Amino acid sequence: MDKKNTASEENILSRRELLTKGMYVGGGALIMSGFSNVASAEPLEVPQWSKQVGKPILTNPYGLPSKYEKDVIRHANVPEDSPPGYVPALAQNSWSATPLADMRGIITPNGLFYERHHGGIADIDPTQHRLIINGMVERNLEISVANLKRYPSINRINFLECSGNSDKDWQVPTGASVQSIHGLLSCAQWTGVSLGLLLREAGADLSKAKYIIAEGADAPSMSRTLPIDRALDDVIVAYAQNGESLRPEQGYPLRLFVPGCEGNLNVKWLRRLEVTDTPLFSRNETSKYTDLLGNNISRAASLTMEAKSVITTPSAGQTLPEKGFYEIRGFAWSGNGKIARVDISLDGGKNWQPAHLNGPVLSKCLTEFTLPWRWKGQHAVILSRAVDETGYVQPYYQQIIKARGHHSEYHNNSMQAWEINTDGSVHNARV
Amino acid sequence: MDKKNTASEENILSRRELLTKGMYVGGGALIMSGFSNVASAEPLEVPQWSKQVGKPILTNPYGLPSKYEKDVIRHANVPEDSPPGYVPALAQNSWSATPLADMRGIITPNGLFYERHHGGIADIDPTQHRLIINGMVERNLEISVANLKRYPSINRINFLECSGNSDKDWQVPTGASVQSIHGLLSCAQWTGVSLGLLLREAGADLSKAKYIIAEGADAPSMSRTLPIDRALDDVIVAYAQNGESLRPEQGYPLRLFVPGCEGNLNVKWLRRLEVTDTPLFSRNETSKYTDLLGNNISRAASLTMEAKSVITTPSAGQTLPEKGFYEIRGFAWSGNGKIARVDISLDGGKNWQPAHLNGPVLSKCLTEFTLPWRWKGQHAVILSRAVDETGYVQPYYQQIIKARGHHSEYHNNSMQAWEINTDGSVHNARV
Repeated sequence: MDKKNTASEENILSRRELLTKGMYVGGGALIMSGFSNVASAEPLEVPQWSKQVGKPILTNPYGLPSKYEKDVIRHANVPEDSPPGYVPALAQNSWSATPLADMRGIITPNGLFYERHHGGIADIDPTQHRLIINGMVERNLEISVANLKRYPSINRINFLECSGNSDKDWQVPTGASVQSIHGLLSCAQWTGVSLGLLLREAGADLSKAKYIIAEGADAPSMSRTLPIDRALDDVIVAYAQNGESLRPEQGYPLRLFVPGCEGNLNVKWLRRLEVTDTPLFSRNETSKYTDLLGNNISRAASLTMEAKSVITTPSAGQTLPEKGFYEIRGFAWSGNGKIARVDISLDGGKNWQPAHLNGPVLSKCLTEFTLPWRWKGQHAVILSRAVDETGYVQPYYQQIIKARGHHSEYHNNSMQAWEINTDGSVHNARV
Repeated sequence: MDKKNTASEENILSRRELLTKGMYVGGGALIMSGFSNVASAEPLEVPQWSKQVGKPILTNPYGLPSKYEKDVIRHANVPEDSPPGYVPALAQNSWSATPLADMRGIITPNGLFYERHHGGIADIDPTQHRLIINGMVERNLEISVANLKRYPSINRINFLECSGNSDKDWQVPTGASVQSIHGLLSCAQWTGVSLGLLLREAGADLSKAKYIIAEGADAPSMSRTLPIDRALDDVIVAYAQNGESLRPEQGYPLRLFVPGCEGNLNVKWLRRLEVTDTPLFSRNETSKYTDLLGNNISRAASLTMEAKSVITTPSAGQTLPEKGFYEIRGFAWSGNGKIARVDISLDGGKNWQPAHLNGPVLSKCLTEFTLPWRWKGQHAVILSRAVDETGYVQPYYQQIIKARGHHSEYHNNSMQAWEINTDGSVHNARV
């Protein structure tokens, strides 16, 4: 469907120039060409904050961002005319999205990590909470949070994505920003105990067991079925995220973490793991979180999130302030392993060139990509395409529709196009 | 000075048993032996939080930890009888320490990242702030924060440590916790622009320039001198930390970040970079942040933080609640590259065994280490020893004193011992 990678006619700065040892070493035009960077001969005014002693330290602080970053927050699914603050009516079924356009690298701060709740945020006392392991086991276990933390632990950095992410654009491209369309996506370092270790500790009958049922302690007892082969792979019972305890909205004090799999499977406020030979067929794995196909058959147990990418800068709702140099940036990820390559098109998919993978490239983890670009004021349609280490290539929207029809809602991993107009404004588009 | 690594007489669980594929696969004693884990035959009581819809989502949230984690905060250098909240008298010279005993993996959340201020926390409007590059350059540059973010960017994960960290114990071991002794240590993902790129953009005369002077926009204009070879290496002008904008107390909107070097060199609220052939000899690189030796000569420009490690669990102030299995955990780091190995002694330094490096091992980055241990109730003195990829071995305290005498205050990277008493209490000790 695509042409081979070819140099575009766009005036891209040479990647070799820009990226050799991470520095600009070419003899060509300066990057700042087009910037208003050169200082005047006048001395700078000394700002007020350099004339006075700064703010004092707090004695009992948990730090927060600068007041100038007040708009970099999670956006919740509330009507625009709602009063600020709590929205009790939405407690049972709610979500909030990460401000992806302002996120850099592979870590999402816990205060901005996306949320998805089916019965509100359980408020759990960790000294009272217990994790039960029962079913096809030699001995039922009842593990306190304190004791769980004494077990051998594992750290890993993995993305988490709701399989309903990007559903806003399943039919027509309506989303107004990368946050509102794709923001049910975040990435963190997770710490916990191997599920396989805990199952062996309980004496699980691994010759007969086929599934683990994970049950949450929230009001709806959110429950999902996990195949035993995956349970014995890289799954953990997590108690920490980005170095500290899980946040309440991420399942404090315990959640299941299944690397690379849809968010809903990562059961929060985890209270029970049942070893069984029968799937649960719960609401959230039958009527929800399955993909209704064109022939009215469901594609169920579609647990793994396939390779996907999105450009975050420039993206819909932003405006390029002037002609000149920009770094195109975005995220790529795959539930099947590492990102092998990201291609970027600046002409609506006619020509493609490889992006730079900017920073750590880890398995089942957000990977940042970048491409230096000099914008001359032209109309442009830009999009990115992820390829993972299995060779899987992120599909066009039309390929998804051809395969699954228009009835589905989940697992939309098609390419996202952004249209840049000559006035610098950026809008949602489809290729 | 040390014996070779030998198996200790302590009843350590076999690492091969525990760590093969991260799972417990041995036929020996269950880990839970000593835990109160086995469930009774009685059904569990259903807790209140499972009987009611949880808390609603917030519409304008920046998330915070659970109320049950209220003690996991930075501790500031304030007298114990101070009222809670602001302590204005301490604004000019203050610091706060990361709660290391509760931290896991390699990421410190921004809200818990340690602080060190010399004139309080500057409160800077990023739309007004400018970065000046001047001195031995072809053209002076005046770069806005928005324009700086358009340049090609770099992501890296690196630790940051105040060279005054662990000074509390320079003379005698007085510190009461790993937080109060070693908590001027944290680790984050940093995003910014290559300093080398910016210097070339200004047309720095690299044939004659020998130093870069970095100046902060805080009241004391905190300034430091950076040798040019290091400036052209891996240094960045950082604007983001752990995915989001720098926090005010970390230099918002811009700071210098010099991987592996003492915290003070990483100038916060960065406003100016001067290219020069003469060092500044500022207060904070002469009377402070140098090591006064026994012969009254100073060891100056000791910029790189050498290899170090500390056990965080168990550590002073904690109590082992019962005999049984524990995972010994801690952090190792080196300003000279990757951690190659961490050894642990359970008998005050007589015998040593290698710890497991638990998770990513990155250059100039915190590395978590672990060792499975079954505590039988005996008296024990435990300590860790880091070895980095250059072959450098973390010294004993007596080695530091022999080399530098008792007059110094900075760069104490000696081994930390903890004494475990038969009642399970853990105390600061020295070997």
